[in-house]
Amino acid sequence: MKLIESLKWRYASKKMNGGKIPQEKIENILTAIQLAPSSMGLQPYTVLVITAPEIKQQIQPIAYSQSQIVDSSHLLVFAAWADITTRQVDEYIQHTAITRNMPVEGLAEFKNTLLGIITKNTTEENFQWAARQAYIAFGTAIAAAAEERVDATPMEGFDASVLDDLLGLAGKGLRSVTMLPLGYRDTENDWLANLPKVRRQKEKLFILQ
Amino acid sequence: MKLIESLKWRYASKKMNGGKIPQEKIENILTAIQLAPSSMGLQPYTVLVITAPEIKQQIQPIAYSQSQIVDSSHLLVFAAWADITTRQVDEYIQHTAITRNMPVEGLAEFKNTLLGIITKNTTEENFQWAARQAYIAFGTAIAAAAEERVDATPMEGFDASVLDDLLGLAGKGLRSVTMLPLGYRDTENDWLANLPKVRRQKEKLFILQ
Repeated sequence: MKLIESLKWRYASKKMNGGKIPQEKIENILTAIQLAPSSMGLQPYTVLVITAPEIKQQIQPIAYSQSQIVDSSHLLVFAAWADITTRQVDEYIQHTAITRNMPVEGLAEFKNTLLGIITKNTTEENFQWAARQAYIAFGTAIAAAAEERVDATPMEGFDASVLDDLLGLAGKGLRSVTMLPLGYRDTENDWLANLPKVRRQKEKLFILQ
Repeated sequence: MKLIESLKWRYASKKMNGGKIPQEKIENILTAIQLAPSSMGLQPYTVLVITAPEIKQQIQPIAYSQSQIVDSSHLLVFAAWADITTRQVDEYIQHTAITRNMPVEGLAEFKNTLLGIITKNTTEENFQWAARQAYIAFGTAIAAAAEERVDATPMEGFDASVLDDLLGLAGKGLRSVTMLPLGYRDTENDWLANLPKVRRQKEKLFILQ
């Protein structure tokens, strides 16, 4: 299975070499993110794709000064919707009707179900729900990068509220949830590059019944 | 890119045909889940792999009577750790030391970082963190199933506390977060089988900077 080979190849590189990723590979990784599934199909998140060195430099101190931030080629910031609003649901329903060439009225029941969920939830609950969906896309991005033999370091260790301020995310209705520097491992200087992968044994990770 | 082809092939089947998935394909999907990354490498979740028809029948009414529960070949239930405890961290550190053939003492700093996080967090915060990690594995499982041309229907629509009671998850220190019936689409009877996929446009989903 190609995905298994890719997942065995990958690891969370601790030192990248500054190499640039070809545009075609980036496009493939972004397409995989776009195709990732989400609850009700809403995709309640936005992904920032940062290449500007001055922005990466400003982000680095917010993330425990991790070097991959500035040594990456592209830095992805996964930001979930801070709330899920009626306007966003309307836009999604419109987009679905157009994509499937059907009248909006045919989606009334689906729309009502979705509105029922988001209005019953608090803003924080909607955000947490959106964050989980963003993690599906995040997992998909990690798999996609590995297939392209692009290194990717999943990174939750940063001050989200400071990052949100820096990137002006509140004004966009977003809150950052996780980051993914993409680049190439600097094998010689990466202490993790040659260590065996640690994973829970199948007999502990799975319960068969 | 093979992953893109797989993600285009897949959709959330609304009607499965009861066909059984060969063991080799299931093993590959479980191996992909095992290889999925998680924060600090902790993998704070367990995945139930349910094939027993009587258990699926009991789960179905808890999940809006969705037919895929009983028409699936294997039903995966992703359950996050209800809390993250010192004992679990100890076990993980031991397992890492053995896997990497190094003394436990060499992992003292890493262990302290991890203990610092989980003791600072409330139980609920640890659970929510664990749930997000489970969603990375969930996204990986969906991609793996698609590569095997096995249908998978991501399913959050169920009463988690009732399911937890049914499966005795509290006693195992677990809380269910999402499900994934695996099986084969019944194309003729699945209204969603031939509809175009709806995804946010790249110019809306991504912000380049």
